[in-house]
Amino acid sequence: MERGHGGHQQGKIYVVGIGPGDAEHMTQRAQSVWNEVDVVAGYKTYIDLIRPWLADKKVVATGMRQEIDRCREVVEIALAGQSIALVSSGDAGVYGMAGILIECLEEKDALDISLEIIPGVSAANAASSLLGAPLMHDFAVISLSDLLTPWEVIQKRVKLAAEGDFVMAIYNPKSKGRQDQIEWVRQAVLDYRDPQTPVGIVREALRGESQVIITTLAEFTQSPIDMLTTVVIGNSHTRVIGPYMVTPRGYIL
Amino acid sequence: MERGHGGHQQGKIYVVGIGPGDAEHMTQRAQSVWNEVDVVAGYKTYIDLIRPWLADKKVVATGMRQEIDRCREVVEIALAGQSIALVSSGDAGVYGMAGILIECLEEKDALDISLEIIPGVSAANAASSLLGAPLMHDFAVISLSDLLTPWEVIQKRVKLAAEGDFVMAIYNPKSKGRQDQIEWVRQAVLDYRDPQTPVGIVREALRGESQVIITTLAEFTQSPIDMLTTVVIGNSHTRVIGPYMVTPRGYIL
Repeated sequence: MERGHGGHQQGKIYVVGIGPGDAEHMTQRAQSVWNEVDVVAGYKTYIDLIRPWLADKKVVATGMRQEIDRCREVVEIALAGQSIALVSSGDAGVYGMAGILIECLEEKDALDISLEIIPGVSAANAASSLLGAPLMHDFAVISLSDLLTPWEVIQKRVKLAAEGDFVMAIYNPKSKGRQDQIEWVRQAVLDYRDPQTPVGIVREALRGESQVIITTLAEFTQSPIDMLTTVVIGNSHTRVIGPYMVTPRGYIL
Repeated sequence: MERGHGGHQQGKIYVVGIGPGDAEHMTQRAQSVWNEVDVVAGYKTYIDLIRPWLADKKVVATGMRQEIDRCREVVEIALAGQSIALVSSGDAGVYGMAGILIECLEEKDALDISLEIIPGVSAANAASSLLGAPLMHDFAVISLSDLLTPWEVIQKRVKLAAEGDFVMAIYNPKSKGRQDQIEWVRQAVLDYRDPQTPVGIVREALRGESQVIITTLAEFTQSPIDMLTTVVIGNSHTRVIGPYMVTPRGYIL
């Protein structure tokens, strides 16, 4: 995606989704963009994942929860005339940096800066490829992080997605300070789905040593779950076929 | 994803998500897999997208709506000892070929065949990267194709996703024989959302000449929509910021 008039004194901004983590699941566009920029910015963990491509490139690495400061700095650097890539894990547009960056452009009255958003393989897709094919039918992606969303809104969404028989991909199922929400989700979905509904739990999908568990709605919260885990809850048609979790698309064999 | 015991007389199967279409948005893994197989199979349009990598590789290209036959043939070829890549557009696991292939493995009692599912950038992510950042918060992916899903099920899901204030990515919004469903969706979502809610319409996202329109819930069905289009309906917080459609994640600037 490229927009903006690209004033001749301004650098271009790239927001880059680097995929799940392993280099081979990064797109060619993401792998080539580092050569086109003066500066690379991002959360330290993600910078480390792409370090092999950066050589002696100027890097601005920041800590967690500094997203707004990071975006403001990116805009300042572009306004000063340098091209800069802002790194996001997974897809830059799914709970990623793309939206915040555009809000920062608006704040700085800098919407004419040239911007390219480079999509990547998101965590839901990476986790599902390890489970088999759980997302073959309509699905909902829901984050349980209540830092920026009222818990009541999240609860309402979980209930409605359960009622609608959506396959559900749950991001941020737990954190240090947030342990009980996933148990609430289990109970809420049990109001609509069979206890034997398959549930997939994937930790660090396609980032080093992925851990994959296929279990049931009745029991899945007994498995290890943390903030690096994606939980995929099947719909009423999802089946376990051998080592795979599959939601049939409807084809009759 | 790699599974199965890989009987020594059997070939390995790869289900490959090639992303939206443009080669630069394919992952490195997808680009390298063609060298590891004896045969490449898939719908002719997708085969054509990867033709530059295939050189004189054996290709089995088939027409639309022959998915089951194609999968059965893939399994037969692997059982006969050849390795084969089955091509899927976008992500192989989202309305793609991965699920059908696993069902065919089950049908042929061949679940011990070695299988690797390679995820890709899905149409929702590709379209969103062109619109700005509409998927920054919880979203639902819904296909309007009623070939394999009762229309009543689709209607229920659209209503519940609208009630839950999910951003909605609509796949298969129209086909030759199915013109009116998207107008029903517009009316149904209007029961829950403001007529000025931003709606993005992207045709052939990141496949050649992408066409991008940002319009409103009130008016979007007046824009050209066909089976190659993805429609993204914003939630109650989605805004148009300059040339972009953005759903704030909640960060307060």
